[in-house]
Amino acid sequence: MKLLRVGPAGAERPALLDHDGTLRDLSALVADIDGNLLSDASALDRVRAAAGAGVLPALDADGLRVGPPVARVGKVVCIGLNYHDHARETGAEPPAEPVVFLKAADTVVGPDDTVLVPRGSRKTDWEVELAVVIGRTARYLDSAEAALAHVAGYAVAHDVSEREFQIERGGTWDKGKNCETFNPLGPWLVTADEVPDPQALGLRLWVNGELKQNGTTADQIFPVGEVVRYVSQFMTLYPGDVINTGTPAGVAMGAPEPKPYLGAGDVVELEIDGLGRQRQELKDA
Amino acid sequence: MKLLRVGPAGAERPALLDHDGTLRDLSALVADIDGNLLSDASALDRVRAAAGAGVLPALDADGLRVGPPVARVGKVVCIGLNYHDHARETGAEPPAEPVVFLKAADTVVGPDDTVLVPRGSRKTDWEVELAVVIGRTARYLDSAEAALAHVAGYAVAHDVSEREFQIERGGTWDKGKNCETFNPLGPWLVTADEVPDPQALGLRLWVNGELKQNGTTADQIFPVGEVVRYVSQFMTLYPGDVINTGTPAGVAMGAPEPKPYLGAGDVVELEIDGLGRQRQELKDA
Repeated sequence: MKLLRVGPAGAERPALLDHDGTLRDLSALVADIDGNLLSDASALDRVRAAAGAGVLPALDADGLRVGPPVARVGKVVCIGLNYHDHARETGAEPPAEPVVFLKAADTVVGPDDTVLVPRGSRKTDWEVELAVVIGRTARYLDSAEAALAHVAGYAVAHDVSEREFQIERGGTWDKGKNCETFNPLGPWLVTADEVPDPQALGLRLWVNGELKQNGTTADQIFPVGEVVRYVSQFMTLYPGDVINTGTPAGVAMGAPEPKPYLGAGDVVELEIDGLGRQRQELKDA
Repeated sequence: MKLLRVGPAGAERPALLDHDGTLRDLSALVADIDGNLLSDASALDRVRAAAGAGVLPALDADGLRVGPPVARVGKVVCIGLNYHDHARETGAEPPAEPVVFLKAADTVVGPDDTVLVPRGSRKTDWEVELAVVIGRTARYLDSAEAALAHVAGYAVAHDVSEREFQIERGGTWDKGKNCETFNPLGPWLVTADEVPDPQALGLRLWVNGELKQNGTTADQIFPVGEVVRYVSQFMTLYPGDVINTGTPAGVAMGAPEPKPYLGAGDVVELEIDGLGRQRQELKDA
């Protein structure tokens, strides 16, 4: 299923995009798309049955804003340097074990919402990423296979990053990863049953129409199951948590000088096979 | 006011500790102690007036668990190496600007709840910290004075840390800061009007009765107002967010070999002048 949330920010309603592309209202069936729903197999079965029976009311998609497909995200865990080609472009050795950092959940916005260039920013950069949404509480998982059974679904994430704040201002990377609006998510949460191989997805990102990133999750150093297993050794993952699994080559930081960092007026579009497409215009904060 | 939340985990009720030490029930007056309440000056005034009028029902504190004093914490921002004496013991130069990292809000537990030693941990360490709770949305603040006006109150925090995960496993510090139960908070949220000088608070921590940390916020490299101002340049702070402002000297990592890291059965107690006392027993995860 393709689950999504539509409407004004903070007042989205749950919806489903059905096989013929019609938007269907889920608000009579479920309170919201969040950790509670994603951990409730029978509620998800009821949604699936209603979708199959064709009884869900259609919604007029015209002019409707799309919000993030998961409400009340608990935490966003990010994996750094997880593509061979991206590690090469940054001059880093492929890490021996996953590089982990956090984004605050309040950075999550809808897939087409405005992205704000932070005040004082000179190095706002893009990163298309495969986001994994957790469906079952995960602690100390012992295999990648077990880990995949804890995944509710997948979505497109934009891990917007300010490189000077991230790397040149001392301390950890977190300073450059948590600016307001820095994590567009969606348009859809595609349930895991409809993503048979998360290691065979093409990811692409354009800036002002020019293709900048064109990768595949086949190039991930640590595949999705291993990432979820690994992270669960260090922190407990809860339903509604999100893991951004890293970005392929092609970011501004990896380009020759002068590096083409983002500014107000730039438009970023990104997509992942089967998971939909985002479009953000940048504005000054 | 000393605001707190008492009852079983996940089902705490809001309460107030009055001037003569009686626990008073706030549940008829406010839904909970959270970002909504802390950003609502008139609701806080109603609580203050009811407390002053002596009309709040008493609660029997006997056997009541104390939860974290803030519900639905949004994010926990932490400042590293923020005391001159702690920077010295770790061999680090005092940072030129604050070191910032994040803890997931799901690490927050009550002040006397069990702390879990992560599986595979050999270096679980303690850190007593002054926690700042945000009361007003803070973006790009332009002075430390303005920043202090965004603080709802103060609490004791225990920034439990696994040093091997934090420092020796690659990537950022976040891997060693986000284990389950790693952020005891409370017992109270003391409102800012009752903490006239946050830079004049003694902090102490004992392990199995032995005093390990005995510092003062006067030794902070970046004082509270400057920390809040600085963080607001990189991320938006929302009501209910928490900032752990760093720890003084005396952690296990700073001790001579063999360093006295924590294990199951150890008891940690910590307190800050006027903000109350915590006590945690450690168990294996």
